[in-house]
Amino acid sequence: MTKPYKKIMITGAAGRLGTELRRGLAPLADTLLLADMVEVKDLQANEEGIVFDLGDEEATMAAIEGCDAIVHMGGAPHERPWQEVLDSNIRGSYHIFEGARKHGVKRVIYASSVHAIGYHRLGDHIPCDAKPRPDSLYGVSKCFVESLASLYHDKFGIESACVRIFSSFPEPADRRMLWSWLSFDDCCRLFSACLTAPYLGATITAGMSDNKVKPVDMTNGGHVGFRPQDSSEPYREAMEAKTDPADPGDPSTQHIGGWFVNLGHPDDEEGK
Amino acid sequence: MTKPYKKIMITGAAGRLGTELRRGLAPLADTLLLADMVEVKDLQANEEGIVFDLGDEEATMAAIEGCDAIVHMGGAPHERPWQEVLDSNIRGSYHIFEGARKHGVKRVIYASSVHAIGYHRLGDHIPCDAKPRPDSLYGVSKCFVESLASLYHDKFGIESACVRIFSSFPEPADRRMLWSWLSFDDCCRLFSACLTAPYLGATITAGMSDNKVKPVDMTNGGHVGFRPQDSSEPYREAMEAKTDPADPGDPSTQHIGGWFVNLGHPDDEEGK
Amino acid sequence: MTKPYKKIMITGAAGRLGTELRRGLAPLADTLLLADMVEVKDLQANEEGIVFDLGDEEATMAAIEGCDAIVHMGGAPHERPWQEVLDSNIRGSYHIFEGARKHGVKRVIYASSVHAIGYHRLGDHIPCDAKPRPDSLYGVSKCFVESLASLYHDKFGIESACVRIFSSFPEPADRRMLWSWLSFDDCCRLFSACLTAPYLGATITAGMSDNKVKPVDMTNGGHVGFRPQDSSEPYREAMEAKTDPADPGDPSTQHIGGWFVNLGHPDDEEGK
Amino acid sequence: MTKPYKKIMITGAAGRLGTELRRGLAPLADTLLLADMVEVKDLQANEEGIVFDLGDEEATMAAIEGCDAIVHMGGAPHERPWQEVLDSNIRGSYHIFEGARKHGVKRVIYASSVHAIGYHRLGDHIPCDAKPRPDSLYGVSKCFVESLASLYHDKFGIESACVRIFSSFPEPADRRMLWSWLSFDDCCRLFSACLTAPYLGATITAGMSDNKVKPVDMTNGGHVGFRPQDSSEPYREAMEAKTDPADPGDPSTQHIGGWFVNLGHPDDEEGK
Amino acid sequence: MTKPYKKIMITGAAGRLGTELRRGLAPLADTLLLADMVEVKDLQANEEGIVFDLGDEEATMAAIEGCDAIVHMGGAPHERPWQEVLDSNIRGSYHIFEGARKHGVKRVIYASSVHAIGYHRLGDHIPCDAKPRPDSLYGVSKCFVESLASLYHDKFGIESACVRIFSSFPEPADRRMLWSWLSFDDCCRLFSACLTAPYLGATITAGMSDNKVKPVDMTNGGHVGFRPQDSSEPYREAMEAKTDPADPGDPSTQHIGGWFVNLGHPDDEEGK
Amino acid sequence: MTKPYKKIMITGAAGRLGTELRRGLAPLADTLLLADMVEVKDLQANEEGIVFDLGDEEATMAAIEGCDAIVHMGGAPHERPWQEVLDSNIRGSYHIFEGARKHGVKRVIYASSVHAIGYHRLGDHIPCDAKPRPDSLYGVSKCFVESLASLYHDKFGIESACVRIFSSFPEPADRRMLWSWLSFDDCCRLFSACLTAPYLGATITAGMSDNKVKPVDMTNGGHVGFRPQDSSEPYREAMEAKTDPADPGDPSTQHIGGWFVNLGHPDDEEGK
Repeated sequence: MTKPYKKIMITGAAGRLGTELRRGLAPLADTLLLADMVEVKDLQANEEGIVFDLGDEEATMAAIEGCDAIVHMGGAPHERPWQEVLDSNIRGSYHIFEGARKHGVKRVIYASSVHAIGYHRLGDHIPCDAKPRPDSLYGVSKCFVESLASLYHDKFGIESACVRIFSSFPEPADRRMLWSWLSFDDCCRLFSACLTAPYLGATITAGMSDNKVKPVDMTNGGHVGFRPQDSSEPYREAMEAKTDPADPGDPSTQHIGGWFVNLGHPDDEEGK
Repeated sequence: MTKPYKKIMITGAAGRLGTELRRGLAPLADTLLLADMVEVKDLQANEEGIVFDLGDEEATMAAIEGCDAIVHMGGAPHERPWQEVLDSNIRGSYHIFEGARKHGVKRVIYASSVHAIGYHRLGDHIPCDAKPRPDSLYGVSKCFVESLASLYHDKFGIESACVRIFSSFPEPADRRMLWSWLSFDDCCRLFSACLTAPYLGATITAGMSDNKVKPVDMTNGGHVGFRPQDSSEPYREAMEAKTDPADPGDPSTQHIGGWFVNLGHPDDEEGK
Repeated sequence: MTKPYKKIMITGAAGRLGTELRRGLAPLADTLLLADMVEVKDLQANEEGIVFDLGDEEATMAAIEGCDAIVHMGGAPHERPWQEVLDSNIRGSYHIFEGARKHGVKRVIYASSVHAIGYHRLGDHIPCDAKPRPDSLYGVSKCFVESLASLYHDKFGIESACVRIFSSFPEPADRRMLWSWLSFDDCCRLFSACLTAPYLGATITAGMSDNKVKPVDMTNGGHVGFRPQDSSEPYREAMEAKTDPADPGDPSTQHIGGWFVNLGHPDDEEGK
Repeated sequence: MTKPYKKIMITGAAGRLGTELRRGLAPLADTLLLADMVEVKDLQANEEGIVFDLGDEEATMAAIEGCDAIVHMGGAPHERPWQEVLDSNIRGSYHIFEGARKHGVKRVIYASSVHAIGYHRLGDHIPCDAKPRPDSLYGVSKCFVESLASLYHDKFGIESACVRIFSSFPEPADRRMLWSWLSFDDCCRLFSACLTAPYLGATITAGMSDNKVKPVDMTNGGHVGFRPQDSSEPYREAMEAKTDPADPGDPSTQHIGGWFVNLGHPDDEEGK
Repeated sequence: MTKPYKKIMITGAAGRLGTELRRGLAPLADTLLLADMVEVKDLQANEEGIVFDLGDEEATMAAIEGCDAIVHMGGAPHERPWQEVLDSNIRGSYHIFEGARKHGVKRVIYASSVHAIGYHRLGDHIPCDAKPRPDSLYGVSKCFVESLASLYHDKFGIESACVRIFSSFPEPADRRMLWSWLSFDDCCRLFSACLTAPYLGATITAGMSDNKVKPVDMTNGGHVGFRPQDSSEPYREAMEAKTDPADPGDPSTQHIGGWFVNLGHPDDEEGK
Repeated sequence: MTKPYKKIMITGAAGRLGTELRRGLAPLADTLLLADMVEVKDLQANEEGIVFDLGDEEATMAAIEGCDAIVHMGGAPHERPWQEVLDSNIRGSYHIFEGARKHGVKRVIYASSVHAIGYHRLGDHIPCDAKPRPDSLYGVSKCFVESLASLYHDKFGIESACVRIFSSFPEPADRRMLWSWLSFDDCCRLFSACLTAPYLGATITAGMSDNKVKPVDMTNGGHVGFRPQDSSEPYREAMEAKTDPADPGDPSTQHIGGWFVNLGHPDDEEGK
């Protein structure tokens, strides 16, 4: 049977989620092009590897040629000093979209983050495509790419999904993840759905498993066709046994960005 | 046990959905009165047949006498020249509501259509009772009946549901139906729900199965009590194998009305 | 100076509002083509007259040829028996839009009515483009044309405004008009605005003067550029002196359609 | 394993729901303090009993000392004369919140009621935290407590949930309960969820089981983590066999408060 | 000319706003019945005085007999200990509405307050009829009356307006009043509008002059017909000269209730 | 009289709007610090000049020291190649906000642009703080700063307004400006309002004069206190005489960004 794509590039392919997606997206393309700053190991028959820095425009462009979809997981994965956020997340993502434009890529699926909207409150029941309200420079860079994706769809016709991933880990790692957790399997389901949805436009959606507590309204992501099948419930008892309840007065309890809202400015932290 | 209705008239009873509803609605009435322009065959013990043209006011009125509910599936089932749309869908439906008013019918359940709202976009996540945005003269006629139903409830107290049926076929017949499909069993569940809901008022709702991709927000139909139990997923693999992905630049991909938005004017087509 | 239109056809030109618009729209076209079932009198230098019935498709089409805008005021001006509503308002308006399509008319401005939404409540603060909720067959026919206008814009590119006129009379004629009144001058301003707005799409808006009581939210009509300059206040004292306050329990007080909501079915009235 | 609370006071513990919650909330606290105007019987090892009148401020305050959560089910459970509503529901609940403030209680979960919003209509699809629209003095007292809970959270930091219970009975007792029913098990799930949700703020939510007909939008309660697991469907056939369908013209059919909207003023009823 | 009312009772008629309304409402009734706990002085020809305590049900009822409208300004005018709020605002207002019900009063216009919604934020742009979010016990009592008014309209047909007065003083008395000020003349205009609006239902609206800064959306009050004609601008320069700008970090700057949000509990203040 | 600010830095002070604001903001600060890449001429007594490139972090930081407000007009004023947008608008604005954070600046007022939301449609009636939908790299950079401002308020307490300026020129320069025009005087009023509003938070608002056509809903900017006093009407006749009406099928007519939506990618234009 014909696969929907010939070659999908996965950036950040050596990372935590990139590794999972190698498995999850294999059915969707003849070839997965695994891109990272470091060499990706254990290449399978359907995989090719490539090493470059997203900040290197020419290398990024060259890598994209021949791909018909990009799953863009690369760049700094959490709060970092401005210069790093600028180079890897802002400039790097611009290179991705420019590459997509110049080489006729059909869809770009981007790992945005809850931290693009981290200062919204848990009780707000925001829609999954709520307005930007970043909780960090990292979050600001995610907002930047979301607006870039909007432009590249409206003006250049490139379909995209910016997936605001909440907390994708092997299992819930703290109390907050009892509601924010996205299992690896659900993460794969979500990115697959984005690549195969009948209409994508410039979608902004969110990624959480089917956890009991649901502070985000997913209605606006209904056209993507993501149906989470995992839940944090099996982990609840153990997590509650070993951790204290959240402090209701702590900003990290009140906002969906969690402890990111309590971080200082990264350049201060770095002693800059 | 007493059935909720004595006699339900089904118009268009010889048609695709009319035939399914004979089976599905049998438990709800002592008698089903099967009305169509052609003779309905294989009448069962609980069924009566009647032949007339909806454009014939007198005949329509006469047929309604003695019914306490009408399931109005009749009329042109897709885009047709204006004169036919006018006679069968506009004039015909007026006769139905007038008959309901004059003969004390309690509820009218009407087969409206996605084409009443076909120019809304897939990414709009419209509610199931979204504003009119028809994609055809056929769709305009559906909007007409929806506003007529509103009047007959507000002024004359007749409860009604206008069910915007998306794509009700034996199985999904094209890629679009992977999200728009309404199985025959779900169609029967939906019309049964409309006939037995505790409160109907002048409901406008939509009909799709529990498909993975959900571009319509069904919240406003919650009082009807329709819970779809089928899904297009079992048909996905075969459908994707034999058809190409949708072209994102094609209006029929972008709008929920599908290929109806690409139709020209029916009278031009007819060489008029 | 070049006028924006060469020839504007005004239907219903012999009627109350048609007469006012002859004056108001004169600056916008080289010629006003004044159409009605009866002869329009006192033709001015910039005016031409034509007599035909909107129900006559061929005559309507012929009249439209050469016009680049239509101001469609014709048809039954209030509740009438179904056959008359059907012929003059439904069939007649279809002929207008078909004529516009076939003869390349740019804009159609349609005299819709508060009665398309008459069953909304005064306390609902509905937007000027609220969903249909007609209070009469007359109102249903207005809803029909609104959905037709939507189709002809989405599919055939004809811009239109459906203006839900509330109460346009020489002066407020009852208590309700203290809020629903549209002065003749404001009516002219409104139709002029519709003909000259930079973008019309398929606008649905409403027409009231700048009266003190404002139960309708006009925000969604902001792109039309209508700024009412009259008010019912000068008429308040006299009106309140000669009429009783509204009965809060009367449906005609509670709904924006006023006494139309208390009308019975027109065919009953006619003894049909 | 440590339980989340040391001591939870349940008021109205001798009542219908109070009795169920003894069972349901046992896992959440070392001790349940069972408060009522009458003695609670059959105390278990984890339970303590206390008798006082909520109208007695001093006694209420004293009872609260040492509790870290309150589940406030006490007070008049349905429409009663004003003086009784005032004493038991308004003054009594004020004493509860004042006790919570003075003794450092973390969370108050309050048995609000559908009757706080009973005049909303079934077809409105109101959110679970819709604006007040009470159908009785009883309902007004529920609105009072909801606004009190809002103040005590905003100003004093006490988290609370006001749970608008629809109809919590052993099984559906009339036709309306086919949609409004909250099973006892689901009631326990709901109150447990409120006590353990990661963030509560001043939540207003609603309590119904997973019944087929869903006229209320629960999205705004998503952060509570309540997932009903029961349904009224198993009771439908028997209920429909023994009761007549609702009369669509009866206010008790049209409004979510049911027969409360048809009650007169309680003081009239009492012959006052 | 006949005045719209025979006798309007003004409670709190000796107070700051009550005094202004004597002047402002004189044109609307043959007689103004001026009620207060203290004697109202300088009675004019169209005025009658009466002294009673709103907490005295019998006296309140007796006073209402013969009135066809009530303007209810009485009760504690700001934060007070619970017992006083309970007696004068909660019990007292109940007596007013009961009196209205028993004596056929048509409209009750109530002096609600910004403090019923004081914890909403300035940047929220809440509608004038926003959900309760009180900032004080005083505010909670205003919410109580608002829900009582809703009940008495829905069930007993009494029309009412609850006017959330922001800051009605002779002139702006602090920086916040540059946006929250309601001039005395505008206050009279507003209450007059409530008494003469064609439809009132159970209106909740707000009272501010036409100040430059407008943090509240008045659209939902449009049916009242209030058009403020004063503005705080003439007072701006002097006010800014003598006061410091607001501290953006102070809760009283961020919330519309102003310094009420910084008040402690009134019973603590009283040394209770 | 004390002015509200000691020293306001205006970046881009040599530009079109910067020059106007020198005049308009003079009453608000003891000193205006006029910053630009080129020397600002004709310094007045209340003005100081400083020359630096916003891309130079150290120089920008140094300039900010001692300022208590920044009016940030600097950077590329329209679509430019990516590298220039990155340096002057993205990196430059980051330096501004970092300087504000490090030097205790209270408010930053930023010249955002209609091009941050240029792909919204004229008929959408978007609120002034609508979601990002940029029409150019220039617009993307404006979105970046808007999200940065949100972060710096939520996390670091710096109040800001991002003013989406539509078209600020001496007079309307094309047909579109008949609705999008912001007069220089109104521009000064708007920036003054932002600097003196009682509460700013992280405001996003829009800047247009009181033009007849109003496609943007300004309700969400009501707390700023901007009241435009100019209008494009005096320029209408001349403009309409010398230009053709807009083509309704042209994307630049349909979207609020105007001709920016028809621009290609700036790097292509530059022959890159």
